[in-house]
Amino acid sequence: MGGTSGEVGLPDGRGGPHAFVADLSTLVIGQDDRRHLVRVLRLRDGQPMTLGDGVGRWCSVVFRSEGNPEQSGDVVVVPPPEPSLAVGFSLIKGDRPELVVQKLTELGVDRILPLMAERSVVHWNPAKAIHHVERFRRIARAAAMQSRRVWLPVVDELGPIGRISGEGSFKDGVAVAEPGGEPLDSSVRLVLVGPEGGWTAEELAGHRTIGLGPTVLRSETAAIVAGTLLTARRDGRI
Amino acid sequence: MGGTSGEVGLPDGRGGPHAFVADLSTLVIGQDDRRHLVRVLRLRDGQPMTLGDGVGRWCSVVFRSEGNPEQSGDVVVVPPPEPSLAVGFSLIKGDRPELVVQKLTELGVDRILPLMAERSVVHWNPAKAIHHVERFRRIARAAAMQSRRVWLPVVDELGPIGRISGEGSFKDGVAVAEPGGEPLDSSVRLVLVGPEGGWTAEELAGHRTIGLGPTVLRSETAAIVAGTLLTARRDGRI
Repeated sequence: MGGTSGEVGLPDGRGGPHAFVADLSTLVIGQDDRRHLVRVLRLRDGQPMTLGDGVGRWCSVVFRSEGNPEQSGDVVVVPPPEPSLAVGFSLIKGDRPELVVQKLTELGVDRILPLMAERSVVHWNPAKAIHHVERFRRIARAAAMQSRRVWLPVVDELGPIGRISGEGSFKDGVAVAEPGGEPLDSSVRLVLVGPEGGWTAEELAGHRTIGLGPTVLRSETAAIVAGTLLTARRDGRI
Repeated sequence: MGGTSGEVGLPDGRGGPHAFVADLSTLVIGQDDRRHLVRVLRLRDGQPMTLGDGVGRWCSVVFRSEGNPEQSGDVVVVPPPEPSLAVGFSLIKGDRPELVVQKLTELGVDRILPLMAERSVVHWNPAKAIHHVERFRRIARAAAMQSRRVWLPVVDELGPIGRISGEGSFKDGVAVAEPGGEPLDSSVRLVLVGPEGGWTAEELAGHRTIGLGPTVLRSETAAIVAGTLLTARRDGRI
């Protein structure tokens, strides 16, 4: 449906496509992004676009087919969304983890935690885990460009659910998705979604549980539903 | 996350996998379903499963590797969910329409309407449309087995948004997803999601618009978000 942000102070798409650069003072667009802008989005010399640094700052520029773009508007500083929202999802087979990362990014989730659950049917060794997490970060970055985010989501390293306990930032706002749990309320900041086989009793111990509905959801669908309900609640839509 | 239905009177997965048959009085499982049950779900002779007719009736049976299953429980009659909820989505490229149909089925949407929008980048001729819609129905059926639905969703023939006006069943409950629209409220029964290029003024004319959030969503994500919010509202979770 395309769509534009209704918020004041965010790139709304009327200013052209959106991309990220490492530094807003030099405005150097990476090779891959430049290729995507020219070949896929058909951006031409002299056309407008927006560039962000992924941590809350962005500006309008004029694209140049040779050399760096020219800044055409003030740098806008956007505070991070409050409260910060996160979804953890357990490793699943095939390309479904990529789908989860892409959709959670579009939805506006701030932090994405890939989890290794006891009953995950997929296991990654450390080398493979680094490779996959790098891939997740590339997917998140591409989805953030497409959805014109100003703050890139943080994609964590792969870890067990146990590490969440040590997380000061979400403290009382952590909930585990589990059939029959309570409806998600506004105190929840981080939802953890288990593998198809469910969580073990040890993994569940000490966690609040929330239910994502009466239907049986595949693991990746549960993660997307969690992201939808968390962000809809923050935006005041529900 | 797997998960079970918390509702009384629905197959909850403790009774084994769920499949559909044309007739609950004869219990003949189709070849493809039998193969899936044996090869993918590893169902063995003598194990329990549930069978439904897709229109509200189901029963527990004992699976037989030779011949038909044996009925082991009374036929349960489940009324259709109220209100009936529907999502229409415009044709999109690649395998994303399949994803939409699968996810809307898992979420419990009752009717799925593939739409041809003015700005759809994909166009199907009538022969191709029939082929694709049949494929959508197979995907919906597989997803309904996996999510243990008792009522199969109805997947409509491909049509333009204009046909919705003639739809008595959704009357005042039709809303078009459009950036900046009102939040979805409980009067909405059918949400129509446009293509990436958006709806034309003609297509929008006379329709209520609802917004699916401040972020820019891809077309298939918008359809999944619409299904999530519609069903969460019906279930009293939001």
